[in-house]
Amino acid sequence: MCGIPFYVGGDVADVDALVVRSPDAHRANGIDVRTRTEAVAIDPAARTVTVRDLTVPGAPEQELGYDALLYAVGAHPTLPQVPGADEYGLPVHVLDEGVTLRRTIEGLRPDAPIVVVGAGYVGMELAEALVVRGFEAVLLDRSPQVMKPLDADMAALVERRLVDFGITVKLGHRLEAVRPLADGLREVVTDLGAFPAELLILAAGARPNVAVAAAAGLRLGESGALRVDPQMRTSVDGIWAAGDCVESVNLVDGSRRNVQLGTHANKQGKVAGMDIAAVLQGRDRGEAAFDGHVGTAITKVCEWEISRTGITEREAVAQGIDHAAVRFEGTAKADYLPDAGTVHVKMLAEAGTGRVLGAQLVGNGQTGKRIDVAATWCQLGVTVQQAQFLDLSYAPPFGGTWDLLQVGARKLAAKLRLTPAL
Amino acid sequence: MCGIPFYVGGDVADVDALVVRSPDAHRANGIDVRTRTEAVAIDPAARTVTVRDLTVPGAPEQELGYDALLYAVGAHPTLPQVPGADEYGLPVHVLDEGVTLRRTIEGLRPDAPIVVVGAGYVGMELAEALVVRGFEAVLLDRSPQVMKPLDADMAALVERRLVDFGITVKLGHRLEAVRPLADGLREVVTDLGAFPAELLILAAGARPNVAVAAAAGLRLGESGALRVDPQMRTSVDGIWAAGDCVESVNLVDGSRRNVQLGTHANKQGKVAGMDIAAVLQGRDRGEAAFDGHVGTAITKVCEWEISRTGITEREAVAQGIDHAAVRFEGTAKADYLPDAGTVHVKMLAEAGTGRVLGAQLVGNGQTGKRIDVAATWCQLGVTVQQAQFLDLSYAPPFGGTWDLLQVGARKLAAKLRLTPAL
Repeated sequence: MCGIPFYVGGDVADVDALVVRSPDAHRANGIDVRTRTEAVAIDPAARTVTVRDLTVPGAPEQELGYDALLYAVGAHPTLPQVPGADEYGLPVHVLDEGVTLRRTIEGLRPDAPIVVVGAGYVGMELAEALVVRGFEAVLLDRSPQVMKPLDADMAALVERRLVDFGITVKLGHRLEAVRPLADGLREVVTDLGAFPAELLILAAGARPNVAVAAAAGLRLGESGALRVDPQMRTSVDGIWAAGDCVESVNLVDGSRRNVQLGTHANKQGKVAGMDIAAVLQGRDRGEAAFDGHVGTAITKVCEWEISRTGITEREAVAQGIDHAAVRFEGTAKADYLPDAGTVHVKMLAEAGTGRVLGAQLVGNGQTGKRIDVAATWCQLGVTVQQAQFLDLSYAPPFGGTWDLLQVGARKLAAKLRLTPAL
Repeated sequence: MCGIPFYVGGDVADVDALVVRSPDAHRANGIDVRTRTEAVAIDPAARTVTVRDLTVPGAPEQELGYDALLYAVGAHPTLPQVPGADEYGLPVHVLDEGVTLRRTIEGLRPDAPIVVVGAGYVGMELAEALVVRGFEAVLLDRSPQVMKPLDADMAALVERRLVDFGITVKLGHRLEAVRPLADGLREVVTDLGAFPAELLILAAGARPNVAVAAAAGLRLGESGALRVDPQMRTSVDGIWAAGDCVESVNLVDGSRRNVQLGTHANKQGKVAGMDIAAVLQGRDRGEAAFDGHVGTAITKVCEWEISRTGITEREAVAQGIDHAAVRFEGTAKADYLPDAGTVHVKMLAEAGTGRVLGAQLVGNGQTGKRIDVAATWCQLGVTVQQAQFLDLSYAPPFGGTWDLLQVGARKLAAKLRLTPAL
């Protein structure tokens, strides 16, 4: 799924390259895979799932028995509930939709206007791909900022970059209707004006698929996703859940959130599988536990690298966490080298303890993946006092003598009057 | 200093760009800086330093009194003790020598042969700069591998890259003499053959400058560098030391080593300054402590990124540390993207505990700085069991769903039969 924007943009020629394992590869591993089969109900008492074969119109429903059930149905795109959106909007959530989208844009005139709804990761990546292909891309979001996982000040830097790259960004615009005009053109109507478009792409995020689980009595959490324990067990005996449909603990602030990322899904699937095997073998529990996430995310948009981990200043303030935040500019290479790049860094730490609460990196240098250092700090409870003394690497092609994140740690230690502050 | 290869290569036009703070900048901060002044002796009992003004020939020695003395004289290049090396070899350790080197090569004929002695970071970086400028570069080292801080198998990959880039690499060659030939040419004689050269560059590392300290009775450590405590105090009251002339504890194996890097010098200088201030103010000790290093290092050579942290397999074996090592190839981007790159990863963990002992990354993708994640693991004693669950970032332009270092952690957990192994 995360490869769709690269397929649409043309960096990836063949959609099959995006498939990690085909149904047949699973079958070769001894797994009975049934695609185009919808699970419509679960009976936890009888331990059965009611399924429907979507390839045979009017096929009767069938009951499948289970010893253990893993509910891993992912998320479903959030579609705007406005007139015309269903009919004229193209969602982009699964590979088939990516194929449809690419085929569609390849049939449009070269500089056609295209509206993308949703200024999150996927929406931004698609808008970039459209501009690269020569289209006029309008990126629309009802939020006042792009990329809600960033603080507004950092998101404003990203927005400016999108505009410089040639994307028309319209924030604070609420979609109200989509109407047909002449010549295959549509009119995308918002509360702040209308935009002509030959195509409307819907990339406004996705909601966890919980309907069947909820109907079967599985407990939902405060986020609206399924509540699971660290073994990925749901509230109902014999049923586990993993992936985009569950919530997990944010290890920085203790909140429970629905984070839809393949990194978590991969870990959770393995943890669930180990626990299911343990239970079926009569052991008490599996040997692994998924304790939570710290909200790490990364993207590359319009040649900029953008990454974040932990909580934002906005979240720290909202939750009344006593903290300090610093924001500064640095370079991705030693400042005397050509193309040293500019990186905007924002970091937060807790008052008193100095615990690192979060970091955000935005810039035109190769610094995105450095967020993993801060992610490790956030997840392990490392303080800014400790972080200053870590033996991080330095050579001129990679920055200054003090790593950017350590510059942040030093500034935070000083601002919070913690000892030592190097 | 670390910028010299970039100045020689021409990426940096003006040598002054490499100076972080000029003597006058220090003076503006109220510091009485005396350049071209040699400290020739210390009298710890009288608390005096004997200095000599090098700008005035025959100037009398002077005594300078001190309340506290910081011994921070760095390291001196290791010059081969063979006939002709002194006369014909050009060391490259301080900026002035970098200026001389650049001026010298700019006076040579375009494709002149140049021999570089020393296949460490600086030697490799200089050889690359010479090839880029069109010279014929011969890189000579008596060691059987380039980059001794890497394991031999990883160093072999680097060596192959240097050769592919156009550098003639001659390992296991011991320098025996340098002799003049006709037309300004020299003959660089080794035990395995002679090489003609218009210039011989000496980049065979540096030894800590301890002569004056040792004469004053300061204790040297097992590494040959000055022994200091975590406040950077030497064995003699009133004298501190920091930088390339001291040894520090390797936090992975507990050994004491002389690691000559600006990252440590920066931290140590601050720690020493804080402790000196505390003592002079009548406090017991300064608020900071330099506990040690984990041997993190990075370089970019011939377009490849090379980094390492912790200890090598060779060191683990030599020290009898029960461990497992894994080596594998990965990509810097998702494998379906163009220019995904190839990264060779080697990782070590301790048997029983699963503690991460070290990592080495070599490849043509932008993965060098990812070593900082492993460095954090090494320094904080993180295990491979824990590392698998860290929330590290993922998006297609930055790799696969499992971060390369987490792939290593999973392989090591499995190999060491630790639980869980995802």
